[in-house]
Amino acid sequence: MERQKRFFLEENAIPRQWYNIVADMKTKPLPMLNPVTKKPMTLDDMTPIFNRACSEQELNTTDAWIDIPEQVYEMYKNYRSTPLVRAYGLEKALGTPAHIYFKNESVSPIGSHKLNSALAQAYYCKQEGVTNITTETGAGQWGAALSYAARAFGLELAVFMVKVSYEQKPYRRSIMQTFGAQVIASPSMSTKVGRKILTETPNYRGSLGTAISEAVELAMQTPNCKYVLGSVLNHVTLHQTIIGLEAEKQMEMAGEYPDVVIGCFGGGSNFGGISFPFMRHTIIDGKDTKFIAAEPASCPKLTRGVFQYDFGDEAGLTPMMPMFTLGHDFAPAHIHAGGLRYHGAGTIVSQLIKDGYMEGMDIPQLESFQAATLFAQSEGIIPAPESAHAIAATIREALKAKEEGVQKNILFCLSGHGLIDMTAYDQYNAGDLTNYDLPQEVIDQNVAKLEKLV
Amino acid sequence: MERQKRFFLEENAIPRQWYNIVADMKTKPLPMLNPVTKKPMTLDDMTPIFNRACSEQELNTTDAWIDIPEQVYEMYKNYRSTPLVRAYGLEKALGTPAHIYFKNESVSPIGSHKLNSALAQAYYCKQEGVTNITTETGAGQWGAALSYAARAFGLELAVFMVKVSYEQKPYRRSIMQTFGAQVIASPSMSTKVGRKILTETPNYRGSLGTAISEAVELAMQTPNCKYVLGSVLNHVTLHQTIIGLEAEKQMEMAGEYPDVVIGCFGGGSNFGGISFPFMRHTIIDGKDTKFIAAEPASCPKLTRGVFQYDFGDEAGLTPMMPMFTLGHDFAPAHIHAGGLRYHGAGTIVSQLIKDGYMEGMDIPQLESFQAATLFAQSEGIIPAPESAHAIAATIREALKAKEEGVQKNILFCLSGHGLIDMTAYDQYNAGDLTNYDLPQEVIDQNVAKLEKLV
Repeated sequence: MERQKRFFLEENAIPRQWYNIVADMKTKPLPMLNPVTKKPMTLDDMTPIFNRACSEQELNTTDAWIDIPEQVYEMYKNYRSTPLVRAYGLEKALGTPAHIYFKNESVSPIGSHKLNSALAQAYYCKQEGVTNITTETGAGQWGAALSYAARAFGLELAVFMVKVSYEQKPYRRSIMQTFGAQVIASPSMSTKVGRKILTETPNYRGSLGTAISEAVELAMQTPNCKYVLGSVLNHVTLHQTIIGLEAEKQMEMAGEYPDVVIGCFGGGSNFGGISFPFMRHTIIDGKDTKFIAAEPASCPKLTRGVFQYDFGDEAGLTPMMPMFTLGHDFAPAHIHAGGLRYHGAGTIVSQLIKDGYMEGMDIPQLESFQAATLFAQSEGIIPAPESAHAIAATIREALKAKEEGVQKNILFCLSGHGLIDMTAYDQYNAGDLTNYDLPQEVIDQNVAKLEKLV
Repeated sequence: MERQKRFFLEENAIPRQWYNIVADMKTKPLPMLNPVTKKPMTLDDMTPIFNRACSEQELNTTDAWIDIPEQVYEMYKNYRSTPLVRAYGLEKALGTPAHIYFKNESVSPIGSHKLNSALAQAYYCKQEGVTNITTETGAGQWGAALSYAARAFGLELAVFMVKVSYEQKPYRRSIMQTFGAQVIASPSMSTKVGRKILTETPNYRGSLGTAISEAVELAMQTPNCKYVLGSVLNHVTLHQTIIGLEAEKQMEMAGEYPDVVIGCFGGGSNFGGISFPFMRHTIIDGKDTKFIAAEPASCPKLTRGVFQYDFGDEAGLTPMMPMFTLGHDFAPAHIHAGGLRYHGAGTIVSQLIKDGYMEGMDIPQLESFQAATLFAQSEGIIPAPESAHAIAATIREALKAKEEGVQKNILFCLSGHGLIDMTAYDQYNAGDLTNYDLPQEVIDQNVAKLEKLV
């Protein structure tokens, strides 16, 4: 390990607006469609499920900058700015000429970037008189963040936690409960969707798609209740741009600009958060930056999926989105990076990848833990299994820079720490983890069921 | 939850020296005694077990300020200064006129204050050509910190982890292993001491006293190996004074001075760390500050122990120390605050309590978790079960201020977070935790075996 160099912003330099990249995109994403009428989603279609402010943000294609509400901004200051760190230890361990920086979102009180959107969404719900909210969570990072935010703004929260994560990561369940949330393993008997799945496949251990279906169903059947989502949708990524906006200022403090920007990719919230503010300079100023979304090889929608309209959830309750997808009933392998076990990619990142602005990179599970261990031993922080994918991609790029003998600036988002994921590290250290092969037929069969793009 | 107010130091304002309170104490602690000769410990007695620099610090009664080595200082900057936080949320939840501040040591990469001394001790060992080190750990906070520090300075580490914690907190074991340390449940079959105990009481689940005996024995039998301790001794508390020295400057930034300073108390490392720099102003400038060491009611050496010479470990391998103790073979109840399950108090704090400068306060286990939950829900940080004792004491003081209608400034040390202790919260939430009554006879029987003070 080495001395790290850390860059913080002065309190009054923390950005006061989020960045809405859609306003600057040359080719806008195709519209989301109402799942019943198949017509573009309107505000009236959105508001039965989501709060009005987030619905407006979701459909906003014209305003590049959205003010952060004062109360959200105040709560941000409880943990922001997060440090931008020059990773000398990792550079030395790799012997690379690359300069490696990471934006450390793991320092938030719940250990990940998820709080950035949780606080915003909880605030808007409270402002609109909502009393109850529902959500889904995979590994539990989002659920833990929303439990904190719901407590902060005085809302009752029910969390559907993917059953395999509920079993793998009991500590995250406890954290949510300690903050006062109700946590239900999904699929559950609490919803029609859940009961149907459990009847047909009693041993199914869940997916984010299923948990979303359950959370949406419960929200629609509960008075004064809204559904709240931790990733995928535009307004969530919008809130997460605080990450990249801070990083931009902090890279300036370091006197450098990234040649490569990397985030792990599940639904796109931390990847969009770190990358969109830099992408802005690619779109507007023509900066030559490489953007890499690091996804698990076992759930490779960006590298092996198709660009199609698809549902955001298993049961088809959400709007249809034009995106890279493996099909909404794709059942991902039980990898420990629970937050990356999602079939689709969100519309903005999908469009940007389609247009050649960004690329996916698929990382096998074992490579992710090898990278995570090297990072822990060289930088002293144990990363979340999700973030480990970004580290693995960073290491690939840093070693390429070494081979080529070029000095590159690589920036990645350390979306969360892995202190609650130590079971995964135990299994890795014991040699009990495997990679998962995903036969092409499985993908082909799944995507064959999707409707063609309109 | 409310907006917290956080105070950070500029990087060049981080203190460059530790504070050695012994130099300023009007009545010095009685000397430690060689366990064999019963004569005051000399440097030559210390160095077979400890590195030379720490041995010198241990015996230093004249220099009030000790330089922090440059390489340790550089590593401190990876996480320091830690924030001083005004806890508006907790104040509001209690409806108290008191101003509550906490020094948040949980933000260190391993989640507690323990890194402050781990880095220093690992550095000194490395400087002196040591290749291997051994230590004990209770809840695992110290072991995790030393694993990080050993990795940072390139040392091989063996950790004896108290068996009950090894079982209760498997994630901390994994963290140590991920950093590359070897972890052994204590009592173990790896040492003579361990084998004897396991033969006599096969189901004994360990104590810090036993783990220390094992670690010392292994260090003495391994070439080029030193023993390293996480609390109790003067040099450890010395390294931890960085906490209070920073807090002093940060309280100045807040424009206030504490009327009450509180820390949880196991061996005294975080309590000494936060309190000694303020105690300096009590000793030298006559400031009127109340110092409270919050200990578990089930291991109450400060409130119900005796001031006697006693060993630091179960087997009698360590020097004898004049201190408040429950007797070195006291077997504490299996509370979740594993770091507080220690029979003795260290010589400095013991002398200061004896002289009326400080006081102990005993906190039942259930009260500690009730306080921890209120803190989590009002401040958004889940505290370690150890730190929860400091929070409980803070709440008592804040409610007293409310009753009396006086505005007081209360400062406590949040020594660590509890993200890896969620099993304990689960049991608390399920109603499965209890308090532990400790009959006076048990204490009396234990301390009756001790030698009288010389």
